[in-house]
Amino acid sequence: MSVDALTILDRCEVLARQSSDPDGIERVYLSPEHAAVNLQAGHWMYEAGMSTRLDAAGNQIGRFEGETPGLPALLLGSHLDTVPNAGRYDGILGVMLAIAVVDRLREAEAALPFAIEVLAFGDEEGTRFGTALLGSRAVAGTWDPAWWELHDKNGTTLREAFVEFGLDPEAIGEAAHRSGDVVGYLEAHIEQGPYLEEGDRALAVVSSIAGARRFALTLIGEAGHAGGVPFHRRHDALAGASEIVLAVEKLARDAGCIATVGRLQAFPGGVNVIPGRVEFSLDLRGETDFARDAVWAAIQAVADDTCDRRGLTFEVEETHNAPAVVASPRLQAVIGRGIQATGDAEPEVLFSKAGHDAMAIADLTEWAMLFVRNGRGGISHHPDEIVTVDDVATALDAFEAAVLALAETYRSGAHATPAP
Amino acid sequence: MSVDALTILDRCEVLARQSSDPDGIERVYLSPEHAAVNLQAGHWMYEAGMSTRLDAAGNQIGRFEGETPGLPALLLGSHLDTVPNAGRYDGILGVMLAIAVVDRLREAEAALPFAIEVLAFGDEEGTRFGTALLGSRAVAGTWDPAWWELHDKNGTTLREAFVEFGLDPEAIGEAAHRSGDVVGYLEAHIEQGPYLEEGDRALAVVSSIAGARRFALTLIGEAGHAGGVPFHRRHDALAGASEIVLAVEKLARDAGCIATVGRLQAFPGGVNVIPGRVEFSLDLRGETDFARDAVWAAIQAVADDTCDRRGLTFEVEETHNAPAVVASPRLQAVIGRGIQATGDAEPEVLFSKAGHDAMAIADLTEWAMLFVRNGRGGISHHPDEIVTVDDVATALDAFEAAVLALAETYRSGAHATPAP
Repeated sequence: MSVDALTILDRCEVLARQSSDPDGIERVYLSPEHAAVNLQAGHWMYEAGMSTRLDAAGNQIGRFEGETPGLPALLLGSHLDTVPNAGRYDGILGVMLAIAVVDRLREAEAALPFAIEVLAFGDEEGTRFGTALLGSRAVAGTWDPAWWELHDKNGTTLREAFVEFGLDPEAIGEAAHRSGDVVGYLEAHIEQGPYLEEGDRALAVVSSIAGARRFALTLIGEAGHAGGVPFHRRHDALAGASEIVLAVEKLARDAGCIATVGRLQAFPGGVNVIPGRVEFSLDLRGETDFARDAVWAAIQAVADDTCDRRGLTFEVEETHNAPAVVASPRLQAVIGRGIQATGDAEPEVLFSKAGHDAMAIADLTEWAMLFVRNGRGGISHHPDEIVTVDDVATALDAFEAAVLALAETYRSGAHATPAP
Repeated sequence: MSVDALTILDRCEVLARQSSDPDGIERVYLSPEHAAVNLQAGHWMYEAGMSTRLDAAGNQIGRFEGETPGLPALLLGSHLDTVPNAGRYDGILGVMLAIAVVDRLREAEAALPFAIEVLAFGDEEGTRFGTALLGSRAVAGTWDPAWWELHDKNGTTLREAFVEFGLDPEAIGEAAHRSGDVVGYLEAHIEQGPYLEEGDRALAVVSSIAGARRFALTLIGEAGHAGGVPFHRRHDALAGASEIVLAVEKLARDAGCIATVGRLQAFPGGVNVIPGRVEFSLDLRGETDFARDAVWAAIQAVADDTCDRRGLTFEVEETHNAPAVVASPRLQAVIGRGIQATGDAEPEVLFSKAGHDAMAIADLTEWAMLFVRNGRGGISHHPDEIVTVDDVATALDAFEAAVLALAETYRSGAHATPAP
């Protein structure tokens, strides 16, 4: 008997118990909990017929050989780390689905024209060291030596954490895969949004991962006494910022982009003092960089107008800029064929507003993703995150069918060596 | 030589250095900086011929006896606490002028028909505990025991702060003056507005103080992932608060009232998290209580509408409610005579849009105030707040002349015992 959907949910539950937070789920890169889930995942990989290893970045890897040993590998993966107060499925479900797919192929004694490697990445969220995708970037060969000096909230550097975990920082290059050794990358992931639930669909093909830009914004006016300064002499930075917050919402909404002002504080912050300065953040995502950047240009125009009318000045610091990455059309089609095999003739196509390991792997090889319906209004990064056993069963069928569809294409020679 | 205008400005500068903020001026009630300025002001009181004491509320008091010891006292006062990022003169200037007036009377060996007490109040701004006028309310005998549970941003209660400052909360009643022991209250204060500058006048008589209401407002929505939650499913507390901030501005402006949102912060405050809660303040002033309360009703209606549309809830806590208070005509005339003594035959009369300690003292005795021109467009609660040495010299002359004018009236019996 191969691993079924109930077993997958049970495994997500088992891994959720490996947490640094006794009242919730939190599992960060290179922690004791990370070592424990690697061991457990490695055991399940072994049971599914894979040879297992820990790579030089702390990623747990299992390899299932194809019809002859040493063939280039199709990579299936996702991550085992979590944000604080996390749900059970973000990342974890994708790894468990990948192991279950291999288990089915073993059971079926499938002879594939490529090997399969299941990658359980150790850091996608970036919770511990602030910089995300460390596990998948090591595999993609895009590790930045400057990261060694990143430190966690206790002051432990990434280099020190490597040594404490039993890893050799000097060997980090060995974690990198060579593009000639890989066929492509497929990832299943819970949708971190409500679209599948609203559309009454179990699964979707991911078309791209939105590029995000983040800004630290400051609006400067003039503080003054709440009683003493009449409106015609005010330069109220908070009133100005309020106009910009509302414009951000309207402009992004109208353009089909996503924008969020998550952080805002008025200074000096006295109850009876007109705010002279407001510091706020902007997180901006779009299906394409073009759409996203057009919204940013429009926001800036509104801010300029607000500043002109109110006698304010606007300062902008860009803190993050990740371009949108587009999934390989060929592998999107393979995911689509997998979904079609479950009876959904016209698979839904969504773009991901959240980042994923696939963004890093895009530097190594072609990629595509399968989204699984989030069962409770898209709640994610939260203990209430949920998936149904039926959807997991459908996702397992679709993911396996996608791998078999790729094998067919690949064997026919239609799948050329991917380029980064 | 008695204390002159240059010395007064120098003393304001000396006190400005007692700040919890190394880059600006911030000095809150019952802080180490408060203790330091009390000590310094007490020293100057002593030099001016006063006996000094710290009262049960942490107010620094100096007493200058009249022609016989133990006479009822004319109170001269203002406050030594500041808002964050404050100027040098708001409150401080009034205390320094009062000490200088006494110093002149000592120098002139004046024999007065009343004692003079200079009151340096410890809390007028309400920066630390949200509720203002704590120092002057203790003196007026209107202390509310419910205030003991007010807490600062670190969770320290007012009761704990008293004990840390070396005060006995049980003794608070001893700070109250009896109305039979006081002749009246005069306060000099920098104008926290541009009207004297615009009218090219150094000084003005204050006719009344506008009534202010203050609210601690909370808007509650739902936090969520910035990438995962589309606009139509958001309950963004910050977008809602932005609507309310702009409505506050428009409604107050249209009604000829003054309203300020001075404090606003979004929570949880993650760059990629939709704000689930916003805490903000509202300070509302009107020339009449009626006009002010009408604006508040309109603001609440807008907030209700915003909450309905956005799926938010609105919580209101009223932290301060002071009705408009009118200065004593008799003491207004005394201030007017003081100004006339400086050569201004028809003194300007203004009403104060800002609150002052006199509002609290109004429950104890008659009061009047002298406004001193603000030298830079009325900028107040800001480091750029400025007064000229000439205006301070004129104010000192006027304040002294007002005290002498009152002494003359009082001696003639025209000044009856004031009623609360």
